[in-house]
Amino acid sequence: MQIIFNPKKESWSEILKRPTQSFEDIEETVKEIFKEIQQKGDVAVQKYTSLFDGTLFENILVSQEEIDEAASLVSKDLKEAIEVAKNNIYNFHAAQKTEKVEVITTNGVTCWQEKRPIQRVGLYIPGGSAPLFSTVLMLALPAQIAACKEIVLCTPPNKEGKINPAILFSAQLCGVTKIFKVGGIQAIGALTFGTETIPQVYKIFGPGNQFVTVAKQYATQFGVGIDIPAGPSELLVYADDSANATFVASDLLSQAEHGKDSQVILVTTSKEMISKVEKEIIAQIDELPRKEIAKVTIQNSRLIYVTTETEAIEFINEYAPEHFIVCSKNEDFFINGIANAGSVFIGNNTPESAGDYASGTNHTLPTNGYAKSYSGVNLDSFMKAMTFQKITEEGIQNIGPSIEIMADAEGLQAHKNAVSLRLNALKK
Amino acid sequence: MQIIFNPKKESWSEILKRPTQSFEDIEETVKEIFKEIQQKGDVAVQKYTSLFDGTLFENILVSQEEIDEAASLVSKDLKEAIEVAKNNIYNFHAAQKTEKVEVITTNGVTCWQEKRPIQRVGLYIPGGSAPLFSTVLMLALPAQIAACKEIVLCTPPNKEGKINPAILFSAQLCGVTKIFKVGGIQAIGALTFGTETIPQVYKIFGPGNQFVTVAKQYATQFGVGIDIPAGPSELLVYADDSANATFVASDLLSQAEHGKDSQVILVTTSKEMISKVEKEIIAQIDELPRKEIAKVTIQNSRLIYVTTETEAIEFINEYAPEHFIVCSKNEDFFINGIANAGSVFIGNNTPESAGDYASGTNHTLPTNGYAKSYSGVNLDSFMKAMTFQKITEEGIQNIGPSIEIMADAEGLQAHKNAVSLRLNALKK
Repeated sequence: MQIIFNPKKESWSEILKRPTQSFEDIEETVKEIFKEIQQKGDVAVQKYTSLFDGTLFENILVSQEEIDEAASLVSKDLKEAIEVAKNNIYNFHAAQKTEKVEVITTNGVTCWQEKRPIQRVGLYIPGGSAPLFSTVLMLALPAQIAACKEIVLCTPPNKEGKINPAILFSAQLCGVTKIFKVGGIQAIGALTFGTETIPQVYKIFGPGNQFVTVAKQYATQFGVGIDIPAGPSELLVYADDSANATFVASDLLSQAEHGKDSQVILVTTSKEMISKVEKEIIAQIDELPRKEIAKVTIQNSRLIYVTTETEAIEFINEYAPEHFIVCSKNEDFFINGIANAGSVFIGNNTPESAGDYASGTNHTLPTNGYAKSYSGVNLDSFMKAMTFQKITEEGIQNIGPSIEIMADAEGLQAHKNAVSLRLNALKK
Repeated sequence: MQIIFNPKKESWSEILKRPTQSFEDIEETVKEIFKEIQQKGDVAVQKYTSLFDGTLFENILVSQEEIDEAASLVSKDLKEAIEVAKNNIYNFHAAQKTEKVEVITTNGVTCWQEKRPIQRVGLYIPGGSAPLFSTVLMLALPAQIAACKEIVLCTPPNKEGKINPAILFSAQLCGVTKIFKVGGIQAIGALTFGTETIPQVYKIFGPGNQFVTVAKQYATQFGVGIDIPAGPSELLVYADDSANATFVASDLLSQAEHGKDSQVILVTTSKEMISKVEKEIIAQIDELPRKEIAKVTIQNSRLIYVTTETEAIEFINEYAPEHFIVCSKNEDFFINGIANAGSVFIGNNTPESAGDYASGTNHTLPTNGYAKSYSGVNLDSFMKAMTFQKITEEGIQNIGPSIEIMADAEGLQAHKNAVSLRLNALKK
């Protein structure tokens, strides 16, 4: 833990620095695999699945039997927990629906904006030690509410060719239309170009390792949208004397167990809080199964004392944390003042875990400072805003002359002409 | 003009192909200039301005005197036309404001979503023959409505160090906070890293040549957001017998004059319409000052006859045009059926020029098929959706057990622990 007292503003950018990641060596691999998938489709996907995952299955499309079997393997308790989470996530995202926005901007000129679903979306769910069925809920539910026609999920199987039952159960529950046993770069490539088996999609969502991250970034060069540029997960806690140090430490540790590159920061106006949290972290960390990971992150964590709340919020906005927990007597000051954060957790009874799983908010959030310009995943991430306009004879007479003048001033005569011809026709 | 009758579905992707652009040779230049700007700031910006634009000015920040002078140079007619456009664009974008979305997802668990402005945005306005002051309106007005704190505009000056007066007038009118006489790659680099003079921004908007396009794409690797990946402008017109062929031709030509790589497509269920539009294009094209450009585009244009409206809309959705004009007796069929388009123009009196300048809708729209997953620029482009949650003692008791079970099933014990500690404290 790095403890920093009263950092000068000039040093903020140094303190707030995230470790930079260089992916240049991975890029070549991604390019090669994408090219092969574009040319050879399924054959290439199978080749790389065999090469990277050491497995080869004829049928990568998950069957209804497999889904039914998975449902029988998920415990009743877990099913009920998933149902609770599902309802909360569903309700919060369904409330984000927006109505058509219609404005008669000038007599005879009606403009409107409507959101329409992205027709085909791809969800990537990583394999590995932690089966992220919670991410299935976070991505498939808003896709379902948005009414995306095809919701395709790719996830790598284990050596026996199986997918974690909780992932299959959640996918089925949340309206995923097709599930494929494919992971890594080859999954992203297949979703980008489409193969004989895997449909091409228009936008790809979901977390992944560095290979998946680079592949998603590269996919954008082929006209595919992606949710958010990915980076290591982050938590910044602001705590004053009113915070419970035990809880604060547990929140910092929950972030720390994600990966060795996770970012954990405490900002406080209480010197006592720093030593209390430090002690609590030491007390709690050894009990954790993932303590080897957590210890590395905690070693790199920063506990920062600042003198005023104003300084604190300025500092936090400069960092733009993915997750921001605020435990303060003065919480409204922070709620109103936070300009850059993915998701905000308020008060001693609001752990980040709540938003990770079950409160209703989405857990796919901007990291790495992207909270300055990016939204976390929400209902609109699965739709696009389209505009429409209809102009009557009166309308074009009202705004036509202005268009003519402006087009003329920009030197675009054909633009002007499209209006002049219509105005002339109306004069007759 | 390529006239295509009854294309088979298997040939659609070939017909709909856009010319691919390769920017690999430009990329190296962009990387080099970015690196130098990151290290040397203003000095590097000045070096490249001098090198590329052949100009060198000590003061790149436009002064109030220059803005005042520009206002006096814009004609009264043009000022009035800009005011008409401004009011329509302002009203349409202001109507896109969304309220806070608050849901009590479970007793004691309150979640809400709020949109907050991106604090600093950069607008790029190209120089060159056409002074795109209309783009200033389209970008600065929603930024102003969103309440972005800093709205920085960069545009290259002419050899005399001047910026087109209409650009300065529009910028001043729409709340731009700072204007810099810098263009090209060096402008995008300066906005990405910030220099002694030019502030760093969080998101960059606006069109530009291939150098600017590649620079914007590269900027995203440094945590900066961009509006939309850029590509050549496009128009697809659907016209049945009810369409006015003269108007249709004028619309196709207004798109064609943009650049030699512009895309122009007519889809129709009327064979007669094809020959009528063809004749009209030939009649109108020679009158255009930009006919050299328009002729190249028209040569590459496609006039496509299909037998049914169902086939037409399927074809159009597959193409996903930036601009889509529909002149049909059956317009509702197309309005309801269009799934992928940037902006839709309905009826004989609704030229694309209206949306380009003054009806109220935005003209910064997704090209190159991106309309399948991207929105055009709108109010939300200048904001990000943030989520908040506050959980009471009752709330964590209600959802806590579900979180524990899910975290446990994902193997994330520290996530579970953050909840268990809170639940245990409440049991005492």
